[in-house]
Amino acid sequence: MNLDDCRRLDAEDPLAALRGKFILPEGVIYLDGNSLGVLPKAAPARIAEVVSHEWGEGLIRSWNSARWIDLPQRLGDKLARLIGAAPGEVVCTDGTSVNLYKVLFAALTQMKDSGRKVVLSERSNFPTDLYIAESLCRERGFVLKLIDDPAGLPAALNGELAVLMLTHVNYRTGAMHDMKALTAAAHAAGALAIWDLAHSAGAVPVALNDCEADFAIGCGYKYLNGGPGAPAFVWVHARHASRFEQPLSGWFGHAAPFEFSPHYRPAPGIARYLCGTQPIISLSALECGIDTVLAAEAHDAGRGSMAALRAKSLALTDAFIALVEERCPGRFTLVTPRAHAQRGSQVCLALADNGPGAYAIVQALIARGVIGDYRAGDSQMPDILRFGFTPLYLGFEDVWRSVDHLVQVLEGEEWKRPEFNQKLAVT
Amino acid sequence: MNLDDCRRLDAEDPLAALRGKFILPEGVIYLDGNSLGVLPKAAPARIAEVVSHEWGEGLIRSWNSARWIDLPQRLGDKLARLIGAAPGEVVCTDGTSVNLYKVLFAALTQMKDSGRKVVLSERSNFPTDLYIAESLCRERGFVLKLIDDPAGLPAALNGELAVLMLTHVNYRTGAMHDMKALTAAAHAAGALAIWDLAHSAGAVPVALNDCEADFAIGCGYKYLNGGPGAPAFVWVHARHASRFEQPLSGWFGHAAPFEFSPHYRPAPGIARYLCGTQPIISLSALECGIDTVLAAEAHDAGRGSMAALRAKSLALTDAFIALVEERCPGRFTLVTPRAHAQRGSQVCLALADNGPGAYAIVQALIARGVIGDYRAGDSQMPDILRFGFTPLYLGFEDVWRSVDHLVQVLEGEEWKRPEFNQKLAVT
Repeated sequence: MNLDDCRRLDAEDPLAALRGKFILPEGVIYLDGNSLGVLPKAAPARIAEVVSHEWGEGLIRSWNSARWIDLPQRLGDKLARLIGAAPGEVVCTDGTSVNLYKVLFAALTQMKDSGRKVVLSERSNFPTDLYIAESLCRERGFVLKLIDDPAGLPAALNGELAVLMLTHVNYRTGAMHDMKALTAAAHAAGALAIWDLAHSAGAVPVALNDCEADFAIGCGYKYLNGGPGAPAFVWVHARHASRFEQPLSGWFGHAAPFEFSPHYRPAPGIARYLCGTQPIISLSALECGIDTVLAAEAHDAGRGSMAALRAKSLALTDAFIALVEERCPGRFTLVTPRAHAQRGSQVCLALADNGPGAYAIVQALIARGVIGDYRAGDSQMPDILRFGFTPLYLGFEDVWRSVDHLVQVLEGEEWKRPEFNQKLAVT
Repeated sequence: MNLDDCRRLDAEDPLAALRGKFILPEGVIYLDGNSLGVLPKAAPARIAEVVSHEWGEGLIRSWNSARWIDLPQRLGDKLARLIGAAPGEVVCTDGTSVNLYKVLFAALTQMKDSGRKVVLSERSNFPTDLYIAESLCRERGFVLKLIDDPAGLPAALNGELAVLMLTHVNYRTGAMHDMKALTAAAHAAGALAIWDLAHSAGAVPVALNDCEADFAIGCGYKYLNGGPGAPAFVWVHARHASRFEQPLSGWFGHAAPFEFSPHYRPAPGIARYLCGTQPIISLSALECGIDTVLAAEAHDAGRGSMAALRAKSLALTDAFIALVEERCPGRFTLVTPRAHAQRGSQVCLALADNGPGAYAIVQALIARGVIGDYRAGDSQMPDILRFGFTPLYLGFEDVWRSVDHLVQVLEGEEWKRPEFNQKLAVT
């Protein structure tokens, strides 16, 4: 594959025009949309309208006139289309960690008299999920069990299991679980399944209801392009939605918040997963981001939600893998699964000798405008170079140029320069 | 007091120029800053810069280059000056309800082996505080006791008390507790004291360290002018700050989040009260709001933080009370305490006959551009008309005109029009 092939693929790409929905800095190839999505072109004007018109002019009246009051639900209904959920099943609110606390608490409450004591996850799950689970397990008398190799998951779904808590697409490796099979196996073992969709929503097809999942949460600032620290989302299967009072029982989850009753009475359905007053400016930014993903729906052509984006995502990551292997032979190990069914929308590489340099190579690429990121390894996992591919705003020429920059960084030993070896606070 | 007197007071007001720091809609007298503060003039440009420059151009790099990573602490340090706290003791993060959950959990953990089982609050406390306490008490084996008359508080501080949880200024009545005396009494009784500063921060002087309070939380979108659903804040006395792992143990509260360790190790001090990735756009808006309050510091002249704002606030509420009593004789009961030491920065009225009409009078005033709000009563509390006085952007002529509109609404029985008696979703 050469540059001309890539340009031809871009010319034939039915989604190419979607790049126009974003503001991308000049000279940047952005391969970090799995960490923070790009600014939607509609967002600055929409945010300015919310700030100057809805807040500035409407003031308190905007809770009614601008319909601030049900914004979490309206956004949830839009997002539902991307994750195989139904209208009324999703709210956009709080952060991913806080939402995980709500649903894991609810799941543990349901399992508290089951005699089952194990919450199962992966050691390489995103740490905040493990920290929240660690806290709740300690508090509520459960045991958090972490497995190192996802191949061992099916065997661990046994009679001790209370809750299987997984991130659908692994943040480090880009490996994607089979949500349907694992949920079915967890249910067959008598347990509940919680899915973190942080690297899935807007990135890969998700079918929560079809998979019969129990609870799901996810992130608004990655593939949903909602802005730094955007509100997250929470979904609960209809069979659970009205069964629990989640512990963060703030007034926005009350059945009638403006009755100002001193006693909590949970709202029916997903609204009870709201806690306090909702962040209107952030939610409005998130809506612009969700809309960019929904803009691809027109190309799905009956193949199901996210079909067009998924096809392009796989083509982009296939091309990246092929070009790295062709042009940097022997230098890297592919950490992300090669099989499409097991791959999210990112490609992670480790140095073949697992020696030093992964961090500095990423910094040298960033200095060239190719923005990926680095995740440190430990005794069980190598250091990785992580590249996210967002089909909404990336093309095949971007892939070709990224690999070309990588080749140059390696050939000239550019990455050994001291400035690329200084550690930043945030990696 | 007549209109000329009010104009003279405005001409002599050293804080009058601060009104220029806000964008107020034409024709509006805004008496609802205790519910949602006004848009700071600096906010639209600052938010646009964060959106278009820091997010749009800087992308993921802004966590380092724009110092997003310690924004909750930097804002906390600014806010600390307004609430009698020290630098490093406050973070701006999450919502008020979520933050209350963190600190009440921490307080209950500290008291779990004390044999004390009572969490004491007021029935008229803001409902979300009661809902959070109800949830945590049920979960953790405590009993939430609510008293109807705050005069009964001292007698209820006894050997059964674990935690005294109060809102410093009552959202319904505008009555202000003596934080120092009640904290000392709670401590003398062997209990901890949690203060909700939702209607205090930026509204009245607060001296958390001087009062030896244990925990405090508060709201960013009222007197701090942080925007709809702005992040809230949390303060913990230095003697408690590093003692607890709060349950919402997300990765931003980890001692080294970018080590991506699978095990939680809390950050030293207040940073452990952070949970997930922080909402950068909302926090940036909040900073503009906090800055508007800090702009009054130049007028404090050694009298202590908030002295100038407090003096004007009391003068405004005094004037409002006097004018209502003079011009609407016998129509209203004053719900807010007359004594300065017991008054926050709002005035609440009930109809003298406690008959219907409070809601409609508020709606008729809003239609005239005088924006206050209504809070429904119950068997123990009357319906109230609630008027917040924010000395940053209100003057004495505003007070005169508000009362004049109130007189007209009453005299013409304007409030009986059907359109003012239709209930809105949000009151």
